[in-house]
Amino acid sequence: MKLFYAPTSAYVRKVMVTAIELGLADRIEKLPSAAHPVKRDERIALANPLAKIPAAITPEGDTLFDSRVICEYLDAQAPGLNLFPAEPRTRWQALTLQALGDGLVDAALLSRYEMAMRPPERQWDDWVQGQLAKVDAAVARLDEKIEMVAGPLTIGQIAIGCALGYLDFRFAHRPWREKHLRLAAWYAAFAERPSMQATIPRDAA
Amino acid sequence: MKLFYAPTSAYVRKVMVTAIELGLADRIEKLPSAAHPVKRDERIALANPLAKIPAAITPEGDTLFDSRVICEYLDAQAPGLNLFPAEPRTRWQALTLQALGDGLVDAALLSRYEMAMRPPERQWDDWVQGQLAKVDAAVARLDEKIEMVAGPLTIGQIAIGCALGYLDFRFAHRPWREKHLRLAAWYAAFAERPSMQATIPRDAA
Repeated sequence: MKLFYAPTSAYVRKVMVTAIELGLADRIEKLPSAAHPVKRDERIALANPLAKIPAAITPEGDTLFDSRVICEYLDAQAPGLNLFPAEPRTRWQALTLQALGDGLVDAALLSRYEMAMRPPERQWDDWVQGQLAKVDAAVARLDEKIEMVAGPLTIGQIAIGCALGYLDFRFAHRPWREKHLRLAAWYAAFAERPSMQATIPRDAA
Repeated sequence: MKLFYAPTSAYVRKVMVTAIELGLADRIEKLPSAAHPVKRDERIALANPLAKIPAAITPEGDTLFDSRVICEYLDAQAPGLNLFPAEPRTRWQALTLQALGDGLVDAALLSRYEMAMRPPERQWDDWVQGQLAKVDAAVARLDEKIEMVAGPLTIGQIAIGCALGYLDFRFAHRPWREKHLRLAAWYAAFAERPSMQATIPRDAA
């Protein structure tokens, strides 16, 4: 499978962690990409007209996006392993946890776009605060209901792990651990997984 | 199932169309909501800390979000009907089509937030154009590869139908039909479905 890739994207990281956990990492051929909300990368757009990553091309030539679809596709390529539970209630909980992780990243990214890309005189603090309120509430809810991330590994835990990793990467100036000790303890252990260690985000040299 | 609802949201519409197509609409109890990216609705946030809609509460008391998760949950409640295909290749195509529809709405909504909510002096035209480029490219790709929306009804077609309906609702000043006749013809027929007719978006009186 070909994958439009960037080492800084939390959504791409979710795909890579999923692939590593499933033992499929060696089937992924990384394609360079430079997704940007204003400067479109037309290489990506050939596969995904939204010009967002991750996007994938299967060996059969089908285009797949976004990260949720690619992760579920990978899961189906690894018989015997199951990051998308089949049992209904467990499945909905795992998928909702994934949506929470993705939504946390969505909000963090919109906040970052505002501060890092937009001309200063066009920045709107109410927008940034609105997005950061989503981030903070998601972190607080996970800490309060820490059982949400308990149990066998699912795509939900992977999404949360990648979302918290993104906060470490881009929002280190907004520490969350000291007021959320249960989530901090969970993440400290989760981040030790080889799949997480192999995918720590970094800016291009 | 309780559903945080608004008649203007394309993502909520996707859930409602899905429910109607599956014969489950009478099982949905609508809860009022006023999701807003800056002015948080704490009623929604009790269920979904991201304070976004749709969010649902199952009869068992589980919280489900976002629209993709709720739609797949509904699909599983209607044995014999199947908007999320089981056959692998058909499934990935339907889910990618859903992601395209959702991404079209994401981009349209970010453009609308910029123009309709943000103080004029904080608006950034490059951002609006970047988002509208995603919308336009998605519409053009669907028209070019009209076979993407062919075949039996899936969640992918529903997502595209709701996305195009959102353009009619909020972007009527940017007509797309005359240069995309194949997609226009598909949508004209799709929009006649009773599920679509019953869910035409409208602003609160």
